[in-house]
Amino acid sequence: MHIERSDLADLARGAAFLGSGGGGDPYYSLLLAEAAIARCGHFELVPLEALADDALVAPCGWIGAPTVSVEKLPNGGETVSGLRRLEKIMGRQIDAVLPIEIGGGNGLAPLIAAAELGVPIVDCDGMGRAFPESQMAIFNIRGLSSCPSVLTAACGSLSVIETDDNNTHERIARALSVALGGIAHMVEYPMSGADAKANAIPGSVSTAIAIGKAIRTARDRREDPFTALAKALEKTGLYPHCLTLFDGKIVDLERETRGGFSVGKVILEGFNGSGRMEVLFQNENLIARQDGEIRALVPDLITIMDRETADTITTERLKYGQRVKVIAAAAPAMLRESSALPFIGPQAFGLGTDFITLERLNALETI
Amino acid sequence: MHIERSDLADLARGAAFLGSGGGGDPYYSLLLAEAAIARCGHFELVPLEALADDALVAPCGWIGAPTVSVEKLPNGGETVSGLRRLEKIMGRQIDAVLPIEIGGGNGLAPLIAAAELGVPIVDCDGMGRAFPESQMAIFNIRGLSSCPSVLTAACGSLSVIETDDNNTHERIARALSVALGGIAHMVEYPMSGADAKANAIPGSVSTAIAIGKAIRTARDRREDPFTALAKALEKTGLYPHCLTLFDGKIVDLERETRGGFSVGKVILEGFNGSGRMEVLFQNENLIARQDGEIRALVPDLITIMDRETADTITTERLKYGQRVKVIAAAAPAMLRESSALPFIGPQAFGLGTDFITLERLNALETI
Repeated sequence: MHIERSDLADLARGAAFLGSGGGGDPYYSLLLAEAAIARCGHFELVPLEALADDALVAPCGWIGAPTVSVEKLPNGGETVSGLRRLEKIMGRQIDAVLPIEIGGGNGLAPLIAAAELGVPIVDCDGMGRAFPESQMAIFNIRGLSSCPSVLTAACGSLSVIETDDNNTHERIARALSVALGGIAHMVEYPMSGADAKANAIPGSVSTAIAIGKAIRTARDRREDPFTALAKALEKTGLYPHCLTLFDGKIVDLERETRGGFSVGKVILEGFNGSGRMEVLFQNENLIARQDGEIRALVPDLITIMDRETADTITTERLKYGQRVKVIAAAAPAMLRESSALPFIGPQAFGLGTDFITLERLNALETI
Repeated sequence: MHIERSDLADLARGAAFLGSGGGGDPYYSLLLAEAAIARCGHFELVPLEALADDALVAPCGWIGAPTVSVEKLPNGGETVSGLRRLEKIMGRQIDAVLPIEIGGGNGLAPLIAAAELGVPIVDCDGMGRAFPESQMAIFNIRGLSSCPSVLTAACGSLSVIETDDNNTHERIARALSVALGGIAHMVEYPMSGADAKANAIPGSVSTAIAIGKAIRTARDRREDPFTALAKALEKTGLYPHCLTLFDGKIVDLERETRGGFSVGKVILEGFNGSGRMEVLFQNENLIARQDGEIRALVPDLITIMDRETADTITTERLKYGQRVKVIAAAAPAMLRESSALPFIGPQAFGLGTDFITLERLNALETI
């Protein structure tokens, strides 16, 4: 399968939705991908099954605060210099790249890598959405090492990290991203084709394109884009349930860049006296409460979208007065496993509650 | 020349004095060096001139807050793993090591490296004393690159840094040291023998041993150790002037660990109504003022010592009530050059004054 130039905006739109508010604003990534495709014609997207067991696969993306990603331009060479260094360390060429997280700008980050290296992108990712921290990747949950990893920054600096503890790796990488101005490119969890096949979230890149396309097509036909989004998500199998949690206006917003993250909360007031919703975020939206009752919880996806266009509003783009819908979607089954929840469930974010599925919270389940 | 076991305590004592209050408490370094010498018999100390022009020379030491260095034990393998990685990056063996700074524990740090690698220590260093930041090394002042550098920490992690800007390198390394618990071992400014010969501060290791020996011998003979210290310093040529600035008691102390440094000030009250002295420090002592008048300024050395034993009290060991002498010594001439002062003079520390020599401040100069 090819990713053509006409797919890029769909991929950006779909990835923004899957980012659950985070993953970095896709705007610059889209521009960089368009420039890359103008040079190379198209990107090759291969299914996980096509990987040779002994292939060298490199997940990549950006680490930092999304608020910084919209203010500080990359130099354009971060991706390729990080990947070339990984090749030098591994003593061999990279066979394929994949997004460490499909969400937001990071869903498009490997396109630039693929164009530069002349390798395919694998139709999968490491998070099935976006998460704020490196050790929240499914690869860590499944016991793979994040190292060696390579961080490259706009100033031209390059750092290699090696540790056998993925939490230490996150701590080091986060400190580096802060020291480097709040954002850096990172190649991490280099792995074999066999490990990718056994552990990555399959099909997420093509799913993102399908989601973006459904929204665009509905808009072109003057149909409801939210209905189209829900149908597209159901069809994927990866995100089997989707729900409009709330329809309202942003009446309060607290957001700060702290410890290398964008953290805060947004409060919405419903139209027609339908109460209030509060959404907390750390780069990504983590919990949605309506009048004190939990409506959705991480790792399920919570995305705030423009109520007319169904454009995703990432956490760093939230503004007072925006009229929005809050959409929730069931996370891929791999993220809801009991072995995964200690890493990416509500307790991992200090939310003080165990995970409850979107279906159960909203009585969608037939018990 | 050999460094024998009997020299180690003298080296530690002399390095502590040259640390100007910083460079890390020498206690653990001394223990590690004694353990290393018990295995290898002695250390080989070679003069700068003995280096081949094309030798690979590796400066090493610890980066972090001295307050942490006395609380957090090293794992003992940091040095060798950092040096071995540098060898891998450079594709050749290291021919010799040297202390990045002669001051404090860092004056002994390369001994462990030398024992592990079986290479000599070069009788020189990169600072002629201790300074808090990596870009304050004479090697940066003279235009050499700090990279590739390798940071290793007690947790077993290893980070390689590459950047062509030594200030960015310091920022990255400092952030890493904080993320790694406040202290890490660093191999930096790898250089050729020719570059070491042209730029390092010569003779500082043997000078430190001579200083330590002079103090010890005087104590053994019940002579005044401060007179012996002053004589020893004059004899070195490197530190041509020495002066007792103040004799008094610590009556106030402010010290915090901030941004990866120990920063603060200490106030002394003189015996016999001789006024007050205030000493500001950032890891190292930077400025000494007596009743508002400047008596000594960085890069000249300011060291606070026990007034009976002439043991150096590093900034992290300062305590209320200690009875001390404040000793100042003229910095090596290379550090007082007008090209060096923007990097290591009072303005580099935001002290708001230009450098004035110890001799001029205390009317020692015959003009």
